[in-house]
Amino acid sequence: MSDKTRVVIIGAVALGPKAACRIKRLRPDFEVILVDQQEYISYGGCGIPYYISGDLSDIKELMTTSFHMLRTPEFFENAKGVRVRTRTRALAVDRQAKVVRLRDLVSGREEDLPYNKLVLATGSRPRRLALPGIELPGVTPVANLDHAVFIREKISRGQVERAVIIGAGAIGLEMAEAFTDLWGIETSLVEICPQVLPGVLDPGLAQMVVQHLQEKGVNLYLSEKVQEIREGQEEGALKVITSARELPADLVITAVGVEPNADLAREAGLRLGPLGGIAVNEYLQTSDPDIYAGGDCIENHHLLSGKPVYFPSGSLANRQGRVIGTNVAGGRATFPGIVGSFALKVFDLALAGAGLSLAAARQEGFDAVQALVVQSDRAHFYHTQDLLYLTLVCDRRTRRLLGVQGLASNGDALVGRIDSIAALLQHGGTVVDLSNLEVAYAPPFAAAMDIVNALANTAENILDGYNQTAEVEDFRRDFLGGAADVLCLDVRAPANARPFLERFGPRWLNIPQETLNDRLEEVPRDKDLLVVCNSGVRSYEALRQLQAAGITRAYNLQGGVAALKKSGAVSLDEPEE
Amino acid sequence: MSDKTRVVIIGAVALGPKAACRIKRLRPDFEVILVDQQEYISYGGCGIPYYISGDLSDIKELMTTSFHMLRTPEFFENAKGVRVRTRTRALAVDRQAKVVRLRDLVSGREEDLPYNKLVLATGSRPRRLALPGIELPGVTPVANLDHAVFIREKISRGQVERAVIIGAGAIGLEMAEAFTDLWGIETSLVEICPQVLPGVLDPGLAQMVVQHLQEKGVNLYLSEKVQEIREGQEEGALKVITSARELPADLVITAVGVEPNADLAREAGLRLGPLGGIAVNEYLQTSDPDIYAGGDCIENHHLLSGKPVYFPSGSLANRQGRVIGTNVAGGRATFPGIVGSFALKVFDLALAGAGLSLAAARQEGFDAVQALVVQSDRAHFYHTQDLLYLTLVCDRRTRRLLGVQGLASNGDALVGRIDSIAALLQHGGTVVDLSNLEVAYAPPFAAAMDIVNALANTAENILDGYNQTAEVEDFRRDFLGGAADVLCLDVRAPANARPFLERFGPRWLNIPQETLNDRLEEVPRDKDLLVVCNSGVRSYEALRQLQAAGITRAYNLQGGVAALKKSGAVSLDEPEE
Repeated sequence: MSDKTRVVIIGAVALGPKAACRIKRLRPDFEVILVDQQEYISYGGCGIPYYISGDLSDIKELMTTSFHMLRTPEFFENAKGVRVRTRTRALAVDRQAKVVRLRDLVSGREEDLPYNKLVLATGSRPRRLALPGIELPGVTPVANLDHAVFIREKISRGQVERAVIIGAGAIGLEMAEAFTDLWGIETSLVEICPQVLPGVLDPGLAQMVVQHLQEKGVNLYLSEKVQEIREGQEEGALKVITSARELPADLVITAVGVEPNADLAREAGLRLGPLGGIAVNEYLQTSDPDIYAGGDCIENHHLLSGKPVYFPSGSLANRQGRVIGTNVAGGRATFPGIVGSFALKVFDLALAGAGLSLAAARQEGFDAVQALVVQSDRAHFYHTQDLLYLTLVCDRRTRRLLGVQGLASNGDALVGRIDSIAALLQHGGTVVDLSNLEVAYAPPFAAAMDIVNALANTAENILDGYNQTAEVEDFRRDFLGGAADVLCLDVRAPANARPFLERFGPRWLNIPQETLNDRLEEVPRDKDLLVVCNSGVRSYEALRQLQAAGITRAYNLQGGVAALKKSGAVSLDEPEE
Repeated sequence: MSDKTRVVIIGAVALGPKAACRIKRLRPDFEVILVDQQEYISYGGCGIPYYISGDLSDIKELMTTSFHMLRTPEFFENAKGVRVRTRTRALAVDRQAKVVRLRDLVSGREEDLPYNKLVLATGSRPRRLALPGIELPGVTPVANLDHAVFIREKISRGQVERAVIIGAGAIGLEMAEAFTDLWGIETSLVEICPQVLPGVLDPGLAQMVVQHLQEKGVNLYLSEKVQEIREGQEEGALKVITSARELPADLVITAVGVEPNADLAREAGLRLGPLGGIAVNEYLQTSDPDIYAGGDCIENHHLLSGKPVYFPSGSLANRQGRVIGTNVAGGRATFPGIVGSFALKVFDLALAGAGLSLAAARQEGFDAVQALVVQSDRAHFYHTQDLLYLTLVCDRRTRRLLGVQGLASNGDALVGRIDSIAALLQHGGTVVDLSNLEVAYAPPFAAAMDIVNALANTAENILDGYNQTAEVEDFRRDFLGGAADVLCLDVRAPANARPFLERFGPRWLNIPQETLNDRLEEVPRDKDLLVVCNSGVRSYEALRQLQAAGITRAYNLQGGVAALKKSGAVSLDEPEE
């Protein structure tokens, strides 16, 4: 081994290349070697669904820089001064001797590569389903470029008329869009949990996604367990047997999540965390200070729960790659933890969030409260305006922000709001901080009282006891369920209320908000009232009027008719106001 | 006066109505009276340019709620329980007696209205130009609905072929778009300063706006002083005489900023700030604790400079209205200060920013550094990607963030980034905080290393001395100016460099970055080198290679050819890479 400091990096997608290039920019005198068992490296794995969908014409687009240079081993050698060994597997790390045992997967030759510093960027692997038939041809996860090419080629050859996707997490939903939208494949999505994006998305928002998937023609089977995959009658045909049905398929995608690829670390005696990922400190060092790790193979510290969290993300991997690069080069950069920001496109809907969902917050022991606001993403009079649906979770005692989630057609407008709240979540922000968040305002881009501020104000009104709320789920269960002592009080104009009056009869009352103070005697005091307007703003106003009149069994339906419709709880034609 | 607590609010646009409604929701037992000298109240003044442009067909759209209810005095009475007196001027406040002297502008009748709490929401007025001819018909500011209707009717009647706008601030630019885009009016914009948005926008970004205005056919005259407005030959025709030319016009817009309407407060003996606005504490109380003030008539505390700042904004007014409403109702809400977030649409460009510009930061005594990053607003392989241009200002010593500004075609993508950085600016965030900002990531909405993170990383590289930078202005002055010892080193592919080589000859060198380490002997060591690529990323890589080889007179041109082109410094046709 030469006099040079040698850095060996295991894994050459996302974190590995990022760390390698950073190290070489800071310390051109270091020798940096990237090792990967695959042939293709440094590709945008998150872009695979857009290659499969046909949005990208060539898989090479996932392997180029923003200026169209292919990120090959030669590119890393020449442009970055980084040596690359592909098709090379790291078999073991001898921490005493400071060598990595490598096997060349082409020649089969093995060798020991000494290192001064080692970076583990071994990523994640798809979780395996223990299922009869899982090994049949035509059953595949979507975890690397080989899978991507296999799937797209099968589709391009016209061999896929029907596809079944197992798992309605992020990848499952992206694949449902990829199959249906352009290719017109009849797609079924089977999920064992009762909602899409289980454990991630608020159930109320998840119901809106379900509604959208159904509008787009995806066959969605929730609360169904896949029991077996069998060969079908024709050659190449498959059958997916669930707890409730049999689904014929030409292609079956398994998308039941990923788990950390931490075998190498474990076998080297490095400390793992309780979730199976490599444990690291805030400098992203493992229990061996000469070995760093980041990206999908580690566990992160959750800034809101204070606990370890497994959160694989290409964006985290890149940011952690820079921190590791800085530290390997002799710096002291820190990575304090995460709040779990995410975004996802599902057909024409964008979803995004950061922090804890209401369920997760309660599970962590917080006395958590949730506000829902439905509001235009810019001035309501500006012609491109569209609705954003945002939920905010906060802690009743401290008023600390715990999480935000939302959906919208305009993903940029949504993600911008989520990011601004994520910044507060990362730094212990409170509801008051969000109420005062100083958004950049002009009518084409924001509302004068923007939805992020309105969200905090709504939460504050709930915490202060002014806004006593009900949710779409309450409407479904109690009102649609026919509970005799639950009525709806619609405070919109009669023209808007008419179809509801026709459908629901005397259980649907209509008193426009601006007439309510004069008609208080018409309001029943012996029933629970779900107060309803289009979005939840006028109904809050009405709620305060009812409370002032001593009518206490009244609840503001958060999100109003907009939320009812978006989640499919009602589907009545109303005149445009 | 009854037993009820009476709140009188002077001014019924933005802050006034917001405070009034909040008070009534919290304290239905309070009597709240809104007073305004105009006939129309509670309109969206920021939307006036979109009414003039024709985007809005009816002025009523600026006076309706998001559910199309007209915000008339009757609406406030019935829906909000707020009494409204329009066409009523507040003449004086007697703080001893706690009465406001009012004059009914229709009947001329005067009366004293007693108050328990008073809210001053008197707003701003357009700054007047002391200019011969300023009173001529056809010369008008754009400050209220009457002006808006006057201008649009004049245009609709076909009476405006040529317009002159005096002042290239926000309103001036919005009016230039409104006149040119749909109506096709030949529009001239005269600005006394050498840039558009003087005192607000970074000069480098301002130059990009100039380029865009010129592409859109606006006649822009910078560094020109308007000296006089004269009547023209034909009836209704005008001539605007500047220090350099004579501009014929059918309509002249004065848009030279606004000043606080603080006369009533001053005459009542309330304390004003150094900039002429009403001084308030963090509860938005004036020097008289029973009198609150907010919106365009007050001075704010700037969280970054620590000094008073005058920053009129419809968004601030709304947020401050809520704080005042809470406090008048007995609460203790605070408004800690501002960072000066702004956004603006100018034709197809969106501009936005928050915090201090580089010039402002230096004026405040900061040792300020500026980074510029040009990067896709989402994954560069995603089909809807477009470039964002963002600058970040930070303090060298503390690494505290001081400001961000940017422009883009996609305003939502831009404003989202600005808002997320504004959240950090409001809370003393540093460059490291921004480097770790956890943006929500998916290829359709963000890059894996998003531009906000890249911006912090670039700033850090500058602060650490790795990235020695040059700006477009240096390129213009030194390279285009012909300085003999300044060369450009283009590290892109030969095909991209070719038109530059043809135009600039031997002063433009081309060594692709990936070949640089092998061709270092071709690089002159006795010249200043502006290292250039498309965006500033490869040129930074090249800069580090040059530095490692002991070549120190090299400077990374921030923003690269993208910034040169966007600001019109070069306009060469290049092949698409």
